[in-house]
Amino acid sequence: MSAISGVRLGTGRGGISASKVYEGRDDVLVMAIDAGSSVAGVFTQNGFRAPPVDLAEDRLAKRSVRALLVNTGNANAATGEEGFRRAEDCCRMLAEHLQIDPESVLPFSTGVIGEQLPLEAMRKGIGKATESLTQDAWPRAATAIMTTDSVPKLRTRNLEIDGRPVHIHGIAKGAGMIAPNMATMLAFIATDAGIEQALLSQRLSRLAQDSFNCVTVDGDTSTNDACILVATGASGVRVGEQSERFWNALVDLMNELASALIEDAEGGNKTVRVIVEGGRSRDECQRVARCIAESPLVKTAIFAEDPNWGRICMAIGNAGLEDLDQSLVGLHIGEVPVMSGGSASPEFVEEAANLVMRTAKYSLRVSLGRGSAQVEMLTSDLSHEYVKINADYRT
Amino acid sequence: MSAISGVRLGTGRGGISASKVYEGRDDVLVMAIDAGSSVAGVFTQNGFRAPPVDLAEDRLAKRSVRALLVNTGNANAATGEEGFRRAEDCCRMLAEHLQIDPESVLPFSTGVIGEQLPLEAMRKGIGKATESLTQDAWPRAATAIMTTDSVPKLRTRNLEIDGRPVHIHGIAKGAGMIAPNMATMLAFIATDAGIEQALLSQRLSRLAQDSFNCVTVDGDTSTNDACILVATGASGVRVGEQSERFWNALVDLMNELASALIEDAEGGNKTVRVIVEGGRSRDECQRVARCIAESPLVKTAIFAEDPNWGRICMAIGNAGLEDLDQSLVGLHIGEVPVMSGGSASPEFVEEAANLVMRTAKYSLRVSLGRGSAQVEMLTSDLSHEYVKINADYRT
Repeated sequence: MSAISGVRLGTGRGGISASKVYEGRDDVLVMAIDAGSSVAGVFTQNGFRAPPVDLAEDRLAKRSVRALLVNTGNANAATGEEGFRRAEDCCRMLAEHLQIDPESVLPFSTGVIGEQLPLEAMRKGIGKATESLTQDAWPRAATAIMTTDSVPKLRTRNLEIDGRPVHIHGIAKGAGMIAPNMATMLAFIATDAGIEQALLSQRLSRLAQDSFNCVTVDGDTSTNDACILVATGASGVRVGEQSERFWNALVDLMNELASALIEDAEGGNKTVRVIVEGGRSRDECQRVARCIAESPLVKTAIFAEDPNWGRICMAIGNAGLEDLDQSLVGLHIGEVPVMSGGSASPEFVEEAANLVMRTAKYSLRVSLGRGSAQVEMLTSDLSHEYVKINADYRT
Repeated sequence: MSAISGVRLGTGRGGISASKVYEGRDDVLVMAIDAGSSVAGVFTQNGFRAPPVDLAEDRLAKRSVRALLVNTGNANAATGEEGFRRAEDCCRMLAEHLQIDPESVLPFSTGVIGEQLPLEAMRKGIGKATESLTQDAWPRAATAIMTTDSVPKLRTRNLEIDGRPVHIHGIAKGAGMIAPNMATMLAFIATDAGIEQALLSQRLSRLAQDSFNCVTVDGDTSTNDACILVATGASGVRVGEQSERFWNALVDLMNELASALIEDAEGGNKTVRVIVEGGRSRDECQRVARCIAESPLVKTAIFAEDPNWGRICMAIGNAGLEDLDQSLVGLHIGEVPVMSGGSASPEFVEEAANLVMRTAKYSLRVSLGRGSAQVEMLTSDLSHEYVKINADYRT
């Protein structure tokens, strides 16, 4: 696999958590970034934001970034002033190893909430990670940020722009996607393209909206969610606002990472694309999509492969749309017409819908018949396995 | 058990649904109401309201009510114009038996969505129900309206006002309360007190807000939810705005019915009272309570009896409160201090919290530390059994 020149990665095991989820796995990732790179980030809007998130956002706004420090096993969330100090301490440890300004390090944490970060374990993990810094450790990095994820999530794009090669690599973690509003999602993406800081920030917000936020749902994120985009410029290729091929490749990669999160959803067996069209606004489509995608009754029906479409009607009705005219609402499961004009479609064949639902990936398409706005959202099923994983996670 | 003079009840089996849920059970309830009674109702705000709900609300606003017709096994929802006609047909069948105006009959349906009401089965059930009309069939009535409920829910209050006995009887059904926004809740309450129509309507809305809506959450109800309150006046006692003892007894009974719904939640083993205090407004307290009460991660932790309070922090953060100051937020599980000042309380003893969570009924108390508003909301756990019930319901 090709590298991103200007970015070196190292991982190590500090033994941060005693949980068997992390047994024998590296739990610290260091990403060292060459001077002169542009770095942009989007962060969770959760009101119970973790101290490292505040610190990272604050530092990103103020100065150039030289390193990312990621740990699993402990979210350093709901830890108060002490949690803030410990995040700063860890950045300082890394800065000493790398001989950089401590405030140029951004910290990221994921894992259990409410416990203080164990500093000695962090010191050990940071030490090992800095010893192993190399440009080609992307697969190891993808593994080191996993919590309950069952597979590492790494995607790449290689382009040629103006006759020169440009690369984009991205890793992500998150597997609580069956409960989108509770997921801890972290994504780190780097390219060797050169991109001006302001443009990078502006584009990242928009692209995250079109990719990760269609999984985690706008603004309804966990205490620790973050997505960071690094552009080193080492390829010698400058990317501007008009470089459509580059931006398309980037959003494509981000969408693939977002899908990978759903495919790896805790206890999930299905990846279902909820398409809501014919709305008056994107906002109302999103409300409907979310009511469907988050409904435990819809999710258990998806798990059971049961075309119990009445539950989808209930979920649509719960979105609180003004003057919803039921008689204009339609529903397809895959390509099978299920409901038209607000009641069972004359062409509805339950067996056909069941056949679609027995596949691993399909769509639920709702048409509201009152406008031209449309949104898509990915969701998974609610299985016995989900309850098992989340009831047993800490013990 | 005492009767409510002025109200007669009858039940019968029409065989409306082939599902084994209804096997051998009466599926039609008729409540005949004497002329001169006052009747008030509150109805679901769901955008995919069932035709019988529209019909009932419309008729209640226009004329005096002489009978309620309830069926299980079929919700007559997402059934379009034909569903509307069939609801009217059924009311007409009952009106013929009772020799009353068809438009004085209010229809209520609960069960599977998206299938047309089977008229012959309804005719059969209505016939049997009218044959068995009697004042003392309240227990049978409570059983006849059950769907996936495991126990009938009937509560009574007997008072003496001005030296004369006054009675209130109420029945309710609903067991999908673990997913409050999807529950089908029906409640029918009658008293032999005499209450003026306008007062009855005004009070019912307020009392439903303080009881059932703290379970099903404001305005986020199913396609068929309804609560009906009948006052026959047969006791000879007039109840006015100032009759605090009567109104207290009534809201008390409604609260007991609401609790009974949660205690019977599908697959639920726990009844947890989520108390959110110290908010700037009732509305923001409600948003927080609901984020906690509906979070699949919190619910699985409740099921696992695991004091994983970080999940409660996440849920609080997801409510989107403006300027939330984490350092003012506290949490108790039962009487055990868990979090204070936004991080683990120095007095937190995990074993003590676990002991509380091993009981069947306890409270989660969140203090926001930014005002004096408070709300309470009841919720249940998310268990393997919940997935099983809802994955198998139709098949």
